[in-house]
Formats: sequence, structure tokens, C-alpha cells
Amino acid sequence: MRMLDIIAKKRQGLKHTDQELAFVVKAASDPKAGVPDYQLTAWLMAVCCRGMDEAETAALTRAMALSGRRLDLKRLRAPKVDKHSTGGVGDGISLALAPLMAAAGLAVPMMSGRGLGHTGGTLDKLESMKGFRVRMGIDEITSQLARIGVCMFGQTQDLAPADRTLYSLRDASSTVESVPLVVASILSKKFAEDLDALVLDVKIGSGAIFKNPAEAQALSRALVKTARKLGLRSVAVLTSMDQPLGRYVGNALEVVQAVEVLRGDFTSADYAECLLTLGGWMMHLGGKAKDPEEGAARLKEVIRSGAALERFQKMIEAHGADPRAASDLDLLPKAAMTREIPAPRSGYISWLDARKVGEAAVILGAGRANKDSVLDYGAGFILDRKVGSKVKKGDCVARVHGSDAARMDEATAYFLTGLRVEGQKPKPIPVIRQVVK
Amino acid sequence: MRMLDIIAKKRQGLKHTDQELAFVVKAASDPKAGVPDYQLTAWLMAVCCRGMDEAETAALTRAMALSGRRLDLKRLRAPKVDKHSTGGVGDGISLALAPLMAAAGLAVPMMSGRGLGHTGGTLDKLESMKGFRVRMGIDEITSQLARIGVCMFGQTQDLAPADRTLYSLRDASSTVESVPLVVASILSKKFAEDLDALVLDVKIGSGAIFKNPAEAQALSRALVKTARKLGLRSVAVLTSMDQPLGRYVGNALEVVQAVEVLRGDFTSADYAECLLTLGGWMMHLGGKAKDPEEGAARLKEVIRSGAALERFQKMIEAHGADPRAASDLDLLPKAAMTREIPAPRSGYISWLDARKVGEAAVILGAGRANKDSVLDYGAGFILDRKVGSKVKKGDCVARVHGSDAARMDEATAYFLTGLRVEGQKPKPIPVIRQVVK
Repeated sequence: MRMLDIIAKKRQGLKHTDQELAFVVKAASDPKAGVPDYQLTAWLMAVCCRGMDEAETAALTRAMALSGRRLDLKRLRAPKVDKHSTGGVGDGISLALAPLMAAAGLAVPMMSGRGLGHTGGTLDKLESMKGFRVRMGIDEITSQLARIGVCMFGQTQDLAPADRTLYSLRDASSTVESVPLVVASILSKKFAEDLDALVLDVKIGSGAIFKNPAEAQALSRALVKTARKLGLRSVAVLTSMDQPLGRYVGNALEVVQAVEVLRGDFTSADYAECLLTLGGWMMHLGGKAKDPEEGAARLKEVIRSGAALERFQKMIEAHGADPRAASDLDLLPKAAMTREIPAPRSGYISWLDARKVGEAAVILGAGRANKDSVLDYGAGFILDRKVGSKVKKGDCVARVHGSDAARMDEATAYFLTGLRVEGQKPKPIPVIRQVVK
Repeated sequence: MRMLDIIAKKRQGLKHTDQELAFVVKAASDPKAGVPDYQLTAWLMAVCCRGMDEAETAALTRAMALSGRRLDLKRLRAPKVDKHSTGGVGDGISLALAPLMAAAGLAVPMMSGRGLGHTGGTLDKLESMKGFRVRMGIDEITSQLARIGVCMFGQTQDLAPADRTLYSLRDASSTVESVPLVVASILSKKFAEDLDALVLDVKIGSGAIFKNPAEAQALSRALVKTARKLGLRSVAVLTSMDQPLGRYVGNALEVVQAVEVLRGDFTSADYAECLLTLGGWMMHLGGKAKDPEEGAARLKEVIRSGAALERFQKMIEAHGADPRAASDLDLLPKAAMTREIPAPRSGYISWLDARKVGEAAVILGAGRANKDSVLDYGAGFILDRKVGSKVKKGDCVARVHGSDAARMDEATAYFLTGLRVEGQKPKPIPVIRQVVK
């Protein structure tokens, strides 16, 4: 078998055999295979243009998952359930969700990633807590899950190594936006976690990978079908990413958001709704609730009881951070300066563009312009008003947190390009758009 | 401008601006541009899948042509006309055509390539004449053209360097078969020759890049349109490559073929027809004949007068080979052994597959299996019978020339897989299929 023939086949729109896909995965995970990057990217682009069907997508995902080691969680009695989000702005749901689900009796082995461009990354948010360690070996992950039911860690050398290579090549060759490639990348990592069930949060809107609903729906269907082919119970929840989720955008700021909600403060209504909907489905798929509504109701109880916040505390302690951060938010990194962004006119906020806010956060240093960017953990935005709020000219719409006055000016100006204030009250943006089962 | 955005644009099927195409060409010709090969191949594959329109193809071609130096032939009084063939088996037309046209009053600056796979390459055939030098600088090419009206040379470092990089990446990434990329590769080199007119020989059939007529026609139209946009008078002649052209397949053997026809021996009827048709069009486009038929008639005169053979002799002398080879064919390299391939049964030869014969020639060492193959200049086939010939079982169909008995056995067996002898006389295969103006 030759890589050249495999590329030619996909260029012509033909269907790959399982053996051909295994060959590609081997080529991506083993430098000794001698397949150059320029052949892998040619193949990735052919897949972007010609597509892959369900059987090919499942075969690619399985081969990628098996390209390295896999967790073995058979000894855990709790149902193993995880959530994956396609990424957005202010989407720090995982920070609260993972310990909450553990407190509710599930086991959550959550492999997460870093932020790039306008989207944030769970690992970066966790690392804003000083000492938080996300590089862990398979044995350590397994034993922490047995002890406290939750572990949040980065992709290791030995978990789905083919995905590491293919993902970085996709990022560097404009071959990210392909449904089968996105599906295989997400699910190969999740399959390597040895889960029983998986809830997928597929974002739609200006701040999401897929801006239009039809594409997000196609991705959701492909994710759910492929997950089932791999033996995972699964649903996809399509959620809105037109404006940022919640009230906080930034690394330490999103830890604040998580702690607030775990304390029972549901002021960020869209964040809480997203958290409880996704968590409700995890409870249901994990066999802990007869339907997602009952699951969500149980989770509210777990929060009220204080068990969720306590589990958060145990989790950050297990990862090496100061557990007092859960009760004393002043221990988190803080920006040197804050400034207000005033409403440019009176009226209703009709648009607050998630992508623009995410890009403004990159200007502040809260996100990465490229892989080598150094993060300012305290930087970001607190959104006092969101779409639908009535404002008077000069009212504070958001507060900018940063450490460099010139960058804060630039970020403020950029933020304002994503803000529209109009005379008419806009239709509310629903957070939960659809569930694909 | 970023390469990533350019790739994304073509992935989405959008049209490139001239500036974007100039950026890609710069990236391919200048290592200091810092664009990695894996981005270039991703873009090449996006072009294969999404296509390019006429304006894009012309802009790419022009940018590639201008990526290096260009010949400056303004001082030559003769019309500058060249021919390009898309490549086939036994297609040594250029060897006879270039000196013939020079003898007829045109100037022919012919940049040629090497063979790869089943197709032969003009440079290899020329180099079978000991001492023949094809690596020449621009000044030397120009002065030889002024002196004898013909020069046959290889692509230099400074002529269309972007094409060198892109061509080798295409070859290594299964992105060869794309009409706009083929057009840009061919015409960028021809544009760099500073021509007035160009005749394109587009092969169709089993031994051609494009097997089916619709693709070959699409390529022909794109070539002619793009050539005109670049200011070249141009036609494309579609010619058959179902069976090998002429009676000789091999490097020195095709020199024999050329010398025979220049001596006025038109026994290889299809070779002679192809030569005179292409040459007739060159005469017409070069302003030396009112139509291609008149052009062809003049060329026959030039051959009969002995002027064509004399020009061939001058040409090989100018390139450093022994001029006596034109009169004494025994000076050319010869294979150590020859063997006959007998007809497997009685009947009419109904099929003699050009690709199979070309691949059998590679087994003999007459062609290259890969870029580093060493050629056996004397090896190849002499085809005594072609499609339409009546044979008795055991009659000699072809003679194998080689230097290794085992390889000759293997090549003979392979040759026979491309030969069909049937009871019914087949319809003749026309050599000239169509002219696209």
C-alpha cells in the first residue's frame, strides 16, 4: 500500500477501506513510517473536499483511538461519562461540570485542550490556578478517578498520538473545517477514555467553528452516529455561541464563574442553563436519572448541598493547586487594571459578537494569537450586560481586566465593533437550540 | 496575506485574486518566504478538487513564468515557435521536428523534460547521443538560436523556478491530474521561452495522462485559451496514444526514428503524419504558410532537399555530440541482445497498449521507475507490426533490445499483456483526432 495511491483515491472521491485508513493513521503516528507531512496534508485536503461516509469516519476514529494506549476503567463502579464542547467564548462549563458530576455519582475522565485564536481552552483556565498540574500519566489518572471520581488532564504522548499529529497539521494547513475530520479528532480522544456515555455540546453562531445551523446539525448527527458505532451512548446538544456564554471571559475569570455557580449563585442564567442541561443528559445517559430533566433537578440538589463545591475543592487540591481558592477567590490571579466599557448610546443591546469578544480577549493576552503566546491569566472581560439588556448611554456594558493600558484601549475598541445597541428590544437568544439523539 | 487564508479560500471553492496567486508562486520559488511544503500541497489538492477558472489559470501561469528569468529573443528575425506534447510512448517527434522547423525558417527554443514512469522524455533521448549537453545558460541558448535556429535544453534554475518546486510536489502528493495545474506548468515554461506561437500536442488514450477524450478536450481548450491570454498564437492537436507512436520505443531507438524520417523515409506512417501535421501548424502560426496543409507540403520539400537532416547534424554538433551520428546510426548506443516477440496466434493485431509497452520499456531500463533510475540508452522495442497488421502465429511482432536476459523475459511477458490478436480486421486508429483552435 502506498500513501500516493490512497491520496489519489480520495482525490477522485472514492471510498477508503479500513486498511487504507489504518495506513494513514500509522503514517501520522509513527515517524518511522516515512510518510512526509506534505502527503498527509494533501490527503487531509482531499478529505475536506470529497468527504467521508459514516463507515469511513468510524473506521478512521477507531484507528486513531487505537494509535496509542487507552484508559482501562473497568474496575470503577460509577458510570464513566464525559462531555465535549466544540469550543467557544466564555465556555468554561467544564470547570464546574466535571466536579459537579463526580459529586452526583459519575466518574468523569476529562481530557481537555488549550485555547487557540478566539476560543478558550479548559487546560489554560485550570492552569490559572497556581500549581494546577494537567500533565498526568495513565496510572495517575486512573487512581485519581477511583479516589475522587474526576480528573482533568491534557492529551498525553500515549493517548491517541495520531490525533496530535493530524490536528497540528490541520491547524497549519487550513483543513480544520471538515465534519469527518472533526468527528474523528473529538471521538478518538473520547474513545481512548474508556467511557460509557458522552454528551456533546455543539456550538452554533459567530464564535463557533460552524457558524450556520445546517453545518452544526450535520456535525451533531455525525458525532452521535459515530459515537454509537463505537459503542458509546451519546447525544449532542446544540447551544448558542452568538454572544459569549455566561458573564466572564478569561482564564481566572472563568474559574470565578464556575465557583459562583457551584456555590449556588445562578446569576449567569445562560451559563447555569447550559450546565444543567448538559449535566442532566449526562445523568440520564449514565443511568442516574430517568430523563434529563430529573437529572438537572438532582444536580441542583447536589449544588445546594455544598457537595459540588467541595468536590471542586478536592479536585483542585488533587491536581496540586491551593484548595482555598474555592472559598477565597482573591487567591486567583488578578489583572493590574480594570476599566469600564460604556454603552455608546441608549437602547437595547441587540448583538454582542462572541467571536469579536474572543478576539478582543486575545488582544488582552487572555487567549493565544499563536501556539507560543504567553497568557495573562487575570485578563479578560466581565460582561455586566448581555443581549436584551436595556442601557442608557454611558452605562457600563462590560469591564476590561488587563495589565497593559495600550492593549486595553485596543481591546476596548475591538470589543465595541462587536456591540450593537438599537432602539427596539431584540428577540431573546435561546441558549439550548436543539438536542440531536 | 497569509498562506493559510489562501488555502481556506480555495478549499471553500472561492476565486483567487492575482495577488493571492502571486503569493503562492513566490512561496513556491523562494525558500525564504518560509511557506512549508505541507501548506503548498494542501493548496494544490484544493485546486485539484475545486478547480480554477480561466482568469485564475492565466494569472497563475503568468506569475509562474515570471518567477524566474525569461529568454529575450527580440533580436531574432525568425518567428519563434515551439511545440509541446503532454507525453506518451514512442513520442520522439521533437527530435525530428525542432531541426526540421529551423531548416524551414523558424526559430525553435525548445525546453524539454525527462521521462518518468511509462512516458519517455526528450532530454533522455537526446542524451543517448554521447556528449549531448542539455544544461545550458540563457546566454548560450540565445546565441545558439541566432546561429542555427534551434536549441533543445533542460529547465534551468532560473527559468520558471516555481514550476520546478510545484511540479515535484505535485508528483509526490498525487496532485498531477488537474487541468489548471497542468496548463500552468506547461505554459509557464513556454511563456518563459519568449515565443510568438505554440502548437500543443495533447495525447489521448491508454498511454496519455488523460485517458478519456472529454478530459483531453477540456485540457486542450484550457491550454489554447490560456496561451492566447498570454499573447501566444496557439492551437492544440489531439493525437492518439492508444498504441505507441511510430516504430521505435526507447532512447537511442527514437533517435534512429528521427533520423530515418529526416532522411525522407516515411515508413512509420503515423509518426510522419503526426510530425507533418504539428509542423504544418507551426508553419502556419509562424506566418510561413497560408494554412497547415501548405505548411506540411513545404516541410516535405525541406526534408527532400536534405536541409532538415543537415540541420539535425548541426544541432547535435552544437550540443556537443558527434555529428556523424546523423549519417552513421551505428555510432548510437546499441543493446547487447535482441530477441523477437512472436505473434501468439494468427489474425489481426487489434490492440497494442501504449501504456503497457511503455511500462515494459521501463522494465528493460529504457525508462525510469523513479527519479534515480539509471537508463539503458540502447534498450527498447522495435515494433514491426502495429494495430491493423495481419499476422501468422509465430511472425515477429516486435524486437526487444536489452542487456539483461531476465529483464528481457519479464518485459516480453509484460508486452504480451498489452497485445491482442483477433480474427476480425479492426478499424484503423486515426492518429490526428481533432484540432482545437
